[in-house]
Amino acid sequence: MHGHHHGYLDDKDAYLSRLRRIEGQVRGIARMVEEEKYCIDILTQISAATSALQSVALGLLDGHLNSCVLDAAKQGDDAAKEKLDEASNAIARLVRS
Amino acid sequence: MHGHHHGYLDDKDAYLSRLRRIEGQVRGIARMVEEEKYCIDILTQISAATSALQSVALGLLDGHLNSCVLDAAKQGDDAAKEKLDEASNAIARLVRS
Amino acid sequence: MHGHHHGYLDDKDAYLSRLRRIEGQVRGIARMVEEEKYCIDILTQISAATSALQSVALGLLDGHLNSCVLDAAKQGDDAAKEKLDEASNAIARLVRS
Amino acid sequence: MHGHHHGYLDDKDAYLSRLRRIEGQVRGIARMVEEEKYCIDILTQISAATSALQSVALGLLDGHLNSCVLDAAKQGDDAAKEKLDEASNAIARLVRS
Repeated sequence: MHGHHHGYLDDKDAYLSRLRRIEGQVRGIARMVEEEKYCIDILTQISAATSALQSVALGLLDGHLNSCVLDAAKQGDDAAKEKLDEASNAIARLVRS
Repeated sequence: MHGHHHGYLDDKDAYLSRLRRIEGQVRGIARMVEEEKYCIDILTQISAATSALQSVALGLLDGHLNSCVLDAAKQGDDAAKEKLDEASNAIARLVRS
Repeated sequence: MHGHHHGYLDDKDAYLSRLRRIEGQVRGIARMVEEEKYCIDILTQISAATSALQSVALGLLDGHLNSCVLDAAKQGDDAAKEKLDEASNAIARLVRS
Repeated sequence: MHGHHHGYLDDKDAYLSRLRRIEGQVRGIARMVEEEKYCIDILTQISAATSALQSVALGLLDGHLNSCVLDAAKQGDDAAKEKLDEASNAIARLVRS
């Protein structure tokens, strides 16, 4: 466990309610498939859920930079280097997903 | 309602199980936030869920092209035009999400 | 060579001028690196050039669906199937790039 | 001008040659349109150029985090805050483009 305060914890409840809403969106998409709705309408909902997930990711990333990375930077280059590499890899995964 | 057979219906059960899995992934992400897990680990799971959603969308789109669009093309240009415009807009939303 | 009329040819000149502009944008990005400009400003230009390229791709795809795919659909399922698979793969590459 | 050393300058020549190659790719795409090549083949080249541009962006971003942001973090929270906000906005543009 990381013994410091993750940036996103300041908005923990907001993130939890956003994620519950996205979970509901995905359940709704499954129901549309169950009810054999029109493909394009289902695709519209998938794009909305994907965008919502990406917004959560961008928020978490911003919080991570402003807490974990910033704290590490104050401890010196080695600690910061590790955090920054992690952040860069997470950004690359996000851009490619 | 569209009185014809949507392409995705051939794989309806597979889509339903994939969507249930993605729903579980999103629930898992919420649990990681609840348990205050490390930001980067949560981001990794969000990228995985986003990619899974996009794969479902690409499958649905392929099914749509091979059924709804193909059927419309056989009815003539006007019917096809409408379907093709819908498909192009759905593709644009997918690329931009 | 495909002996039919590609959809994009109706807007050939427009596509050529858009691509020349994007070429100029990339050259401008190189000049910013040459002149050692601020990273964030260079990133802004790269996002703009990437979006411009994606818009050209979406236009070409729309034209392809409305010409090559539509023509193939009229020739029957086998011809259409090949075109539709090509289109789906191109869409997947675009979504993942 | 920013009186400090941008991260990307360590690889300045490599970035310049990558950008020249991408410029050549875009010129090549224009030539394919000029020569009325098949749409799907053009789309394949656009996806390749887009991916190449994103890779340059991810490299610049990594360099930025490891230099500008890291230096700012050492100067204190306010300086770091500004840089981190800039980085987050650049990441959001990259993810959405």
